[in-house]
Amino acid sequence: MKIYGDRISGNCLKVKWVCDHLALPYGWIDVDVVKGETRTADFLALNPWGQVPTVVFDDGRSLAQSNAIIRYLARDSALIPADAFTAAQMDAWLFWEQYSHEPYIAVRRFHLTYLGKSVDTLDPKLETRGYAALDVMERRLADARYLAGDALSLADIALLAYTRLAHEGAFDLSRYGAIRRWIGDAEAELGLDPVR
Amino acid sequence: MKIYGDRISGNCLKVKWVCDHLALPYGWIDVDVVKGETRTADFLALNPWGQVPTVVFDDGRSLAQSNAIIRYLARDSALIPADAFTAAQMDAWLFWEQYSHEPYIAVRRFHLTYLGKSVDTLDPKLETRGYAALDVMERRLADARYLAGDALSLADIALLAYTRLAHEGAFDLSRYGAIRRWIGDAEAELGLDPVR
Repeated sequence: MKIYGDRISGNCLKVKWVCDHLALPYGWIDVDVVKGETRTADFLALNPWGQVPTVVFDDGRSLAQSNAIIRYLARDSALIPADAFTAAQMDAWLFWEQYSHEPYIAVRRFHLTYLGKSVDTLDPKLETRGYAALDVMERRLADARYLAGDALSLADIALLAYTRLAHEGAFDLSRYGAIRRWIGDAEAELGLDPVR
Repeated sequence: MKIYGDRISGNCLKVKWVCDHLALPYGWIDVDVVKGETRTADFLALNPWGQVPTVVFDDGRSLAQSNAIIRYLARDSALIPADAFTAAQMDAWLFWEQYSHEPYIAVRRFHLTYLGKSVDTLDPKLETRGYAALDVMERRLADARYLAGDALSLADIALLAYTRLAHEGAFDLSRYGAIRRWIGDAEAELGLDPVR
């Protein structure tokens, strides 16, 4: 299996972390999003959506969308809760991440850290909705060790990707004690070096 | 099971259609999004995210996020492909719908049809990215009857919800012949009256 990804992209790192955690062998092929390498004809032949991560299996079939990829790779593993309702709660977090978290927290980071923009020039919704997303996570994590059920799941991996880098999007996590505790726990379970 | 939903919301109709198609019994409780009924204390107690649809089961447990709900309700049904890789392709469409389709096609419809705004006042990205999403669907549906695999799946139900109402967001489907064919096929399979 080959992972086409950009190491600055949390969406791509989700896939790497799941493979590492489950000891699934893979090769990593760097695709530079900022340089437009997802828009070349070669890449669009692999993924017509022009997005990383894209995974290509040994039989030539490819799969896109970070959360769909990790859900497929982790099927039959403990990263997906065995109980159907708990798995559905995990799915709710996965969809929420793509709709209500990533478009604000990851996008603000991308503009500030990788496109070199200044905060003043950004849509203020990136800040307000980003903090609204962090508030939702904080409420859950004040009462529970992990997001879905009582063990690490794909919900934690998906949300960890950009939450641990929120400071690169000028989000201040100092008042989010439960989130910071959870970042440390999840990083430890995944064997990641603490980001800060 | 009770579905808290707004009939103007395609996200809510996805849940209704899956229940109707699978003959799952439910009660429907109207929640008026435009009037702010998802922001009341009573509703936030059911769903801290303040979003419809929300489903409450007979044992009191609740579940949010339209695509997570339909994935749970349709588990073990033919609406989720039995083959794991085809199911993953379905998931890719579900995540893509929430990230790359709904935020443009549904949001533009909401502003124009329900908030009474004029096209000139809207972010032009709603139009360009909406058409980009329709282009992606058209390319797939020119070669295949359905979005994932060769039978109706949750991918079709999720994408049908707002694609069939795209004209209410001032999107012109006249040059999307494959999408229009697919809308008719999916509406017929689901027993829906053609929308136009």
